[in-house]
Amino acid sequence: MNGLLKIKKQQKDHKTIIDFAGSKIGNGNFVVIAGPCAVESQEQMFMTAKVIQDMGTIFMRGGTFKPRTNPYSFQGLGIDGLGILEQAKKKYNVIVSTEVMSTEMVDVVSRNVDILQIGSRNMQNFDLLKKVGKTSLPVILKRGLSATIEEWLAAAEYIMCEGNRNVILCERGIRTFEKYTRNTLDLSAVLAVKQLSHLPVIVDPSHGTGRSDMILPMAKAAMAIGADGIMIEIHPNPGEALSDGDQSINFAGFTDLIGEVQKLKKVFNYC
Amino acid sequence: MNGLLKIKKQQKDHKTIIDFAGSKIGNGNFVVIAGPCAVESQEQMFMTAKVIQDMGTIFMRGGTFKPRTNPYSFQGLGIDGLGILEQAKKKYNVIVSTEVMSTEMVDVVSRNVDILQIGSRNMQNFDLLKKVGKTSLPVILKRGLSATIEEWLAAAEYIMCEGNRNVILCERGIRTFEKYTRNTLDLSAVLAVKQLSHLPVIVDPSHGTGRSDMILPMAKAAMAIGADGIMIEIHPNPGEALSDGDQSINFAGFTDLIGEVQKLKKVFNYC
Amino acid sequence: MNGLLKIKKQQKDHKTIIDFAGSKIGNGNFVVIAGPCAVESQEQMFMTAKVIQDMGTIFMRGGTFKPRTNPYSFQGLGIDGLGILEQAKKKYNVIVSTEVMSTEMVDVVSRNVDILQIGSRNMQNFDLLKKVGKTSLPVILKRGLSATIEEWLAAAEYIMCEGNRNVILCERGIRTFEKYTRNTLDLSAVLAVKQLSHLPVIVDPSHGTGRSDMILPMAKAAMAIGADGIMIEIHPNPGEALSDGDQSINFAGFTDLIGEVQKLKKVFNYC
Amino acid sequence: MNGLLKIKKQQKDHKTIIDFAGSKIGNGNFVVIAGPCAVESQEQMFMTAKVIQDMGTIFMRGGTFKPRTNPYSFQGLGIDGLGILEQAKKKYNVIVSTEVMSTEMVDVVSRNVDILQIGSRNMQNFDLLKKVGKTSLPVILKRGLSATIEEWLAAAEYIMCEGNRNVILCERGIRTFEKYTRNTLDLSAVLAVKQLSHLPVIVDPSHGTGRSDMILPMAKAAMAIGADGIMIEIHPNPGEALSDGDQSINFAGFTDLIGEVQKLKKVFNYC
Repeated sequence: MNGLLKIKKQQKDHKTIIDFAGSKIGNGNFVVIAGPCAVESQEQMFMTAKVIQDMGTIFMRGGTFKPRTNPYSFQGLGIDGLGILEQAKKKYNVIVSTEVMSTEMVDVVSRNVDILQIGSRNMQNFDLLKKVGKTSLPVILKRGLSATIEEWLAAAEYIMCEGNRNVILCERGIRTFEKYTRNTLDLSAVLAVKQLSHLPVIVDPSHGTGRSDMILPMAKAAMAIGADGIMIEIHPNPGEALSDGDQSINFAGFTDLIGEVQKLKKVFNYC
Repeated sequence: MNGLLKIKKQQKDHKTIIDFAGSKIGNGNFVVIAGPCAVESQEQMFMTAKVIQDMGTIFMRGGTFKPRTNPYSFQGLGIDGLGILEQAKKKYNVIVSTEVMSTEMVDVVSRNVDILQIGSRNMQNFDLLKKVGKTSLPVILKRGLSATIEEWLAAAEYIMCEGNRNVILCERGIRTFEKYTRNTLDLSAVLAVKQLSHLPVIVDPSHGTGRSDMILPMAKAAMAIGADGIMIEIHPNPGEALSDGDQSINFAGFTDLIGEVQKLKKVFNYC
Repeated sequence: MNGLLKIKKQQKDHKTIIDFAGSKIGNGNFVVIAGPCAVESQEQMFMTAKVIQDMGTIFMRGGTFKPRTNPYSFQGLGIDGLGILEQAKKKYNVIVSTEVMSTEMVDVVSRNVDILQIGSRNMQNFDLLKKVGKTSLPVILKRGLSATIEEWLAAAEYIMCEGNRNVILCERGIRTFEKYTRNTLDLSAVLAVKQLSHLPVIVDPSHGTGRSDMILPMAKAAMAIGADGIMIEIHPNPGEALSDGDQSINFAGFTDLIGEVQKLKKVFNYC
Repeated sequence: MNGLLKIKKQQKDHKTIIDFAGSKIGNGNFVVIAGPCAVESQEQMFMTAKVIQDMGTIFMRGGTFKPRTNPYSFQGLGIDGLGILEQAKKKYNVIVSTEVMSTEMVDVVSRNVDILQIGSRNMQNFDLLKKVGKTSLPVILKRGLSATIEEWLAAAEYIMCEGNRNVILCERGIRTFEKYTRNTLDLSAVLAVKQLSHLPVIVDPSHGTGRSDMILPMAKAAMAIGADGIMIEIHPNPGEALSDGDQSINFAGFTDLIGEVQKLKKVFNYC
């Protein structure tokens, strides 16, 4: 009834804008959501939240339930991590996003953070989509590893069908034969989504390339094609990160990136 | 502790054999698990169970919670379907397998069926893997659409870590550029799994090809390479199936297939 | 005029059968074309031709112009290799197939061998296709690394358009994300070709898997689905092969394979 | 001896710059090579050359030998097309690039144009690579449909080994499962090549996406990541183009694109 395709037909000029007490996604702004792959400690998250506050970028990510291929890898701090996120949020006034991996955790996670993330492995975990569709929190829906654009939009529809229209799509690279990069970042998918849907779409160059040295140039490319923002991994010390250090930049790199983003906002007519 | 890799090192000749009151998977037998994509009615399932009983193949599949790409497609009969499966099971003495899609449904589904299936979209739904790992039912773990063999085995490990060692792997085709077939059935994955693991592995030529005319030849190929069985879609009237009719065979086709399987069992030294 | 699609419409039951003085491909027989990746010496080829003669399989392959990814790798013996092939052919009465890589070499190569091969890298080297289409020798056309079935058949059409209707298709694996095997052998492509075309189709499990231990089971699978034959790499000492040793079997393995093939010919109704 | 890897070790700061009587590629400039997929008539090419001259972009492309999947499709004007290219070149003083498809045509084509193109289907047509490596003309080497970055660089090495060091790499999209776009444009490959090689690299958003509406945004993205230029398809009337009309822009679109490129050159520090 109130799904993607139907709205699209009725309101051609409609664009979904998501409002966090004044900070918006989808309104012609370019947002930067930054933070570590995994929440490791209060100290780490406070340092991260502070640099985000200093940069004025507001949005922070941090994983506390981590979907890891290997069951013996670090799985995240779980509930303890949620507590840390909430403390950082209150102390530094950042908007916090974290992944939710199972229907059973949706309620708990929703109490602590501002944005729910659905990871690429769960893009077609339909019960999870329905469950987050019943919350009032915005949802970042990552594209599945080998999901077509059509399947990705249909997954968004699962969330919206339940009443939650605040979906943010996130292109994070697809799996191809090429192994120089962790995945192949498909920037044309951003353009496709802009043609087919009214939803905001952001880009994750950290997962999309798996290489810290490609984050900045891909962030610029994301601006060039009109994405609504990026989600990147930053860490006080990427070499010691408990996961995904290879695709994280340090705070100096983050500061540079924000400088570039500010410069390009005018060039590419972001507000 | 009791995971895949560890066992493998300790017991080189170990092979996981799963025993259903005498009917076994992984013991050198070739099993045929057949049934419709979706449970549609009691009549349909009774007809299906009867032909399975007549053929002496015992294993029946039927989906009642259906993961569908499009939220507006038929989603399965849900709890009602479980009831039908249980009735067919009791009346025809078949061993029933069905997909479970969410952690919350694991307990309910476990009461009605003999085997739990994890679909390809959920291969890395780690909370679901852990939950079925705590049950005592055998689990068929389908390979993800673009999962590497290593990721697939690691997913199996998630189940086994929780104590449930009765995992059956199922190759069901991977996503490639080729669109003549729905997926590309990767028979070499069966050989790889046999080299790397002690788990039984079956093949799903219905999803693997998406074409009813390829089911029989691919079933024979599965025997030729030493798979432990197949899972196929059969329907009293494929043209009217509520889902996946194109990749289902009718009962006459099923009878022929069983005839071929019987003939080839001796040729390929199945027990 | 005399192309694939047109013939198909006119003669539904037409099947292309290729006749080498009595030895046929496409007539319901299952042929085994064996030999080293690269011709290395007269001694090697005589040994190979002898084992082929002893086994009664007649068809021998051997590359003398080698398309190598790296320009500094061994590139084959070139013209000298052609001489060796011709000597082996005369001495042991085998039917010889070799790859031709450029239009300029087509005439020279045609004088020495019985079958021309077009490698997967050259599947859409259209000038080469046209040139071999003007010869009277049968042509084995390997599927391109990422060629769709439709593109593959269209490439065959390029050869047939020029008058040479003796095309043998060869499925040799496609490139996918999976790296456990060198390529992903797409056996469903054989079934597809049988539906869409009148051409014989063989399978190359050596390139298709890149693993010597998968050659025998995949050869059996090729028989199970009704392929017209296989092309495999054999070498007197795979460990010392100048190229592709990992995907070659030795003569003992070859003898075993022929034994299995003989046994299965009756099972699968080959003539 | 004088190949890619060796040079790289000896001269870390070396960058290959290709000079066309003052117009350079690889010197920190951003070039736009534009023209139709296929040369169709003198009128068309004169119109195209004139708009290129007016825009001051100098580089013109146009195919006269066309590699077409289907043998019954328009195959290009052949030798006649070369004559048209040469006339346009002389009259409008543009630098002309065209594809060469076979070793036999290399000498003829070299007499009429300024740059030779190797198409993606021929990226591993090694005899062709060697032959153009013996000419003195710069060569645009398109990445193969499913070529890894390593294979692509090795193909460039084939050309350079023969003495011709003026190779320009061209990323033109890779084949993936996604079909909304014709190919998936892999911008991270540009970054990879910049890390691994001293060769200039350009981007082809026409083939890379197959959609005219994506050409401009992808051109901007190519600038954002530091590519040395783009190659795009333009046509006086894309709707009537004999090939690839869907991925061509008209002259008005071309003029807009050049305006954007000029604006962004300063932003991204091009010279």
